[in-house]
Amino acid sequence: MINNKGMLVVVSGPAGVGKGTLCRALFAQWSGLEYSISVTTRSPRPGEREGEQYYFRTREEFSKMIDNNEFLEWAEFCGNFYGTPKFHVENVLNRKKIILLEIDIQGAEQVKEQYPEGVFIFIVPPSLKTLAKRLYGRGTETEDIIRRRLAIAARELDNVKDYDYVVENDEINLAVEKLKSIIIAEKCSVKRKSFFLKEE
Amino acid sequence: MINNKGMLVVVSGPAGVGKGTLCRALFAQWSGLEYSISVTTRSPRPGEREGEQYYFRTREEFSKMIDNNEFLEWAEFCGNFYGTPKFHVENVLNRKKIILLEIDIQGAEQVKEQYPEGVFIFIVPPSLKTLAKRLYGRGTETEDIIRRRLAIAARELDNVKDYDYVVENDEINLAVEKLKSIIIAEKCSVKRKSFFLKEE
Repeated sequence: MINNKGMLVVVSGPAGVGKGTLCRALFAQWSGLEYSISVTTRSPRPGEREGEQYYFRTREEFSKMIDNNEFLEWAEFCGNFYGTPKFHVENVLNRKKIILLEIDIQGAEQVKEQYPEGVFIFIVPPSLKTLAKRLYGRGTETEDIIRRRLAIAARELDNVKDYDYVVENDEINLAVEKLKSIIIAEKCSVKRKSFFLKEE
Repeated sequence: MINNKGMLVVVSGPAGVGKGTLCRALFAQWSGLEYSISVTTRSPRPGEREGEQYYFRTREEFSKMIDNNEFLEWAEFCGNFYGTPKFHVENVLNRKKIILLEIDIQGAEQVKEQYPEGVFIFIVPPSLKTLAKRLYGRGTETEDIIRRRLAIAARELDNVKDYDYVVENDEINLAVEKLKSIIIAEKCSVKRKSFFLKEE
């Protein structure tokens, strides 16, 4: 299915790991990427335009889209619905482009079920040891909070096994370089090519 | 097996595709790589030293190494034997380094049988169309020779399916960038990591 298509790259990881910053840096360096555009039930803010920041839909329309299985993933935040519409992703893939989806761990799980041929990248914080050092070094948190944060971090890292790649976000330039390399390598992957001579 | 080890990268492809040039350029840019060192039965040339350019062995010693399954691959060229000794590769892998093996298609097949967890990269000439254009454009070959060369190129490309990656050697800097990206990406591959927090 993906062979003659573009590529869906899913960047996920624990909250606060810096995936947004990494993706923005990647976009700034690489014009070949396109962002996924979400559907939302929240009202447009000043300056936001349909199909640019979001696709704006009513709750009824959103519900119908869920019923019709039109989302790669969806979730509710603060009373509003947000979802990644298949039509937008398919549109980009059919143009043989690369679409980047930056999303939380639960969303990535849903996407993987519907589109396992995507490239799934998990961003991790620097190693627990480094993380512990930072937290202690900062001196702003109690021992108890630090222990709890480390326990959560360790548990979240279990999700790595469901991903294709893991990138440590220790130094941003290095992490962006790795994201770029993964995309370039995947474009060279024999699995992804039907008849590579036609590619590029 | 490979999880706590380095990585064996095999670069192969049709004769004359420029894999040697690419590998030398890759080495010049990346100090983290080590070359595989072959065992040979040919005599040392002036300036060549044991364990640097080659490991020099007698034919009897070489035969014994074959019998003991001490080679990842071996072959005879012009009356001399050449082989990739496992001991050297294992030594580099145990030091968690990356070892690069630039080798012909038959040799790569042997390596894949013995060490399928390696990263197998196939270098291809520019697409047949481009190749045809070049050959005709050059005007030094007869129609018949060109047809034969294109047929051979097309047949050799069948081997791609046994590899992990395919890199087109159209523009050398671009091809080297792809090789680098593949190695960086493989280092981020979840499959290759036992406990990534310990990595790097």
